[in-house]
Amino acid sequence: MAGFRPKNPDYRAVSIATFEQQRAMKTLGISIARLEPGEVDLVMDYSPEFTQQHGFIHAGVITAGLDNACGIAAFTLIPAGAGILTVEFKTNLLAPARGDRFAFRATVVKPGRTLTVCEARAYALQGGAEILIATMSGTLMALAPREASVEGKALAPA
Amino acid sequence: MAGFRPKNPDYRAVSIATFEQQRAMKTLGISIARLEPGEVDLVMDYSPEFTQQHGFIHAGVITAGLDNACGIAAFTLIPAGAGILTVEFKTNLLAPARGDRFAFRATVVKPGRTLTVCEARAYALQGGAEILIATMSGTLMALAPREASVEGKALAPA
Amino acid sequence: MAGFRPKNPDYRAVSIATFEQQRAMKTLGISIARLEPGEVDLVMDYSPEFTQQHGFIHAGVITAGLDNACGIAAFTLIPAGAGILTVEFKTNLLAPARGDRFAFRATVVKPGRTLTVCEARAYALQGGAEILIATMSGTLMALAPREASVEGKALAPA
Amino acid sequence: MAGFRPKNPDYRAVSIATFEQQRAMKTLGISIARLEPGEVDLVMDYSPEFTQQHGFIHAGVITAGLDNACGIAAFTLIPAGAGILTVEFKTNLLAPARGDRFAFRATVVKPGRTLTVCEARAYALQGGAEILIATMSGTLMALAPREASVEGKALAPA
Repeated sequence: MAGFRPKNPDYRAVSIATFEQQRAMKTLGISIARLEPGEVDLVMDYSPEFTQQHGFIHAGVITAGLDNACGIAAFTLIPAGAGILTVEFKTNLLAPARGDRFAFRATVVKPGRTLTVCEARAYALQGGAEILIATMSGTLMALAPREASVEGKALAPA
Repeated sequence: MAGFRPKNPDYRAVSIATFEQQRAMKTLGISIARLEPGEVDLVMDYSPEFTQQHGFIHAGVITAGLDNACGIAAFTLIPAGAGILTVEFKTNLLAPARGDRFAFRATVVKPGRTLTVCEARAYALQGGAEILIATMSGTLMALAPREASVEGKALAPA
Repeated sequence: MAGFRPKNPDYRAVSIATFEQQRAMKTLGISIARLEPGEVDLVMDYSPEFTQQHGFIHAGVITAGLDNACGIAAFTLIPAGAGILTVEFKTNLLAPARGDRFAFRATVVKPGRTLTVCEARAYALQGGAEILIATMSGTLMALAPREASVEGKALAPA
Repeated sequence: MAGFRPKNPDYRAVSIATFEQQRAMKTLGISIARLEPGEVDLVMDYSPEFTQQHGFIHAGVITAGLDNACGIAAFTLIPAGAGILTVEFKTNLLAPARGDRFAFRATVVKPGRTLTVCEARAYALQGGAEILIATMSGTLMALAPREASVEGKALAPA
């Protein structure tokens, strides 16, 4: 799970650029804390705007962070010009998303020409403590450069 | 999948109240379109604030809608005073979330004293067309009334 | 979910042949009960050899039936010469696998050039009753004819 | 993920006994290689009887091994007299199950009074090499001693 070799020497810049093109990440207050080949950590501050009925962060928002961490982790390893799409993910919710700050940490488990499998974990940070609150396993699909350029057309995951 | 009998005669009012206590739903612009015992439809307008890099709605936001539809569908069938938590869900993304409006339709597949299994589908609505864009299967857990009242304490899904 | 058009006019014969090449299906006593484009029903008799600690059929065996139903349902819709691989699946277990006979019914939810998403349900049959015992959602991947012929070499799902 | 404290001092003997009551494990040739609190490794030799159309082990059989590893890992941590049931699992298949021998290694990620979440990985062993072929994340449910004794009656996962 270590020592992935990016195919795109410019992986860092394009991964950050792709992340920043996602307005949802800005709206949710999620940013990149660490980015290595096949590994990405995102962070998000608590915001009452994204809570569920008990005042904790909504599971869908936690999932957005986990999914995005997986997507960018997979993106670091695909060829220049290719795009990435999420095929599927599963989230297990282990504890309430209660904290001042949240971290979403993803790792590529198996890179592939077409499909990449990632795992991610979400943590709630409060005081000095860090509590595991959710896990994700997901599949992402690389779009060949030509397909990736036809945005809004051929983007279905199949 | 039809003819569920709610245990709580007041299920409609408490389901709506629980939904409305979720600030995330308001922030995301998601509202209830239909609510029957074991079945819930939510709707959401397109908003550029919740898009990914291609201008489509982010998968995490689609998942938030699907998860909430499942949660409220399960909630309609639990006893008065009980609470509901998501244990896990899996989302398959079938097509880009491109549309003017989105629908999230959930059905209880198997109600239970402790665990309830739901399925949900997300549709993009554009022009007169309705396109299936994602599916979810998820597990929800009922919290006994006593546990449900200790908010912020015993809410872990285990 | 109806009216799928097979690309391979010979889909029926090749689907049955692929199924019959799976020794696991024979060992588990699973056979095809119905096969239409994008829809497959399998059946299995109860066998004490495949039980768990309570005398019910093991969840892994139920999953083998569900996965195979999905795989053959996807196979009916792919081009001549192509192969099929399972990428991932999730199983929810709803009730004990107690019965004289079991049915596994799969439907293609979204066919695709590369990926096909299927759903399946497992039922226990006992007396005249039919009880839903498990659900599956899964992703399958078509292998291009050339890849499919290099059996034992390029079969990784990525 | 280390240092789990079993509630049942006799966890080792009862975990092994539960495993051995599963005839499916014997039929599939799966046995326990290592058992610690919250961690279980199972092994299985290749058998042509459980293969799919390319001669590799069927995904359902790999899943049976992964699920059982999770079940026993969860079982090591539950109170004396309690039983365990699988609620759900998701399997990602990463590479063909080609090898002389297979290992299924599970770890408890989050133990709980009612629900326990586990992760497991399957490896193919061939020559000296060990290849990751599948991952699982799953949820298991503890049955209270009274329920666990009513075998064949109250065993539904809900």
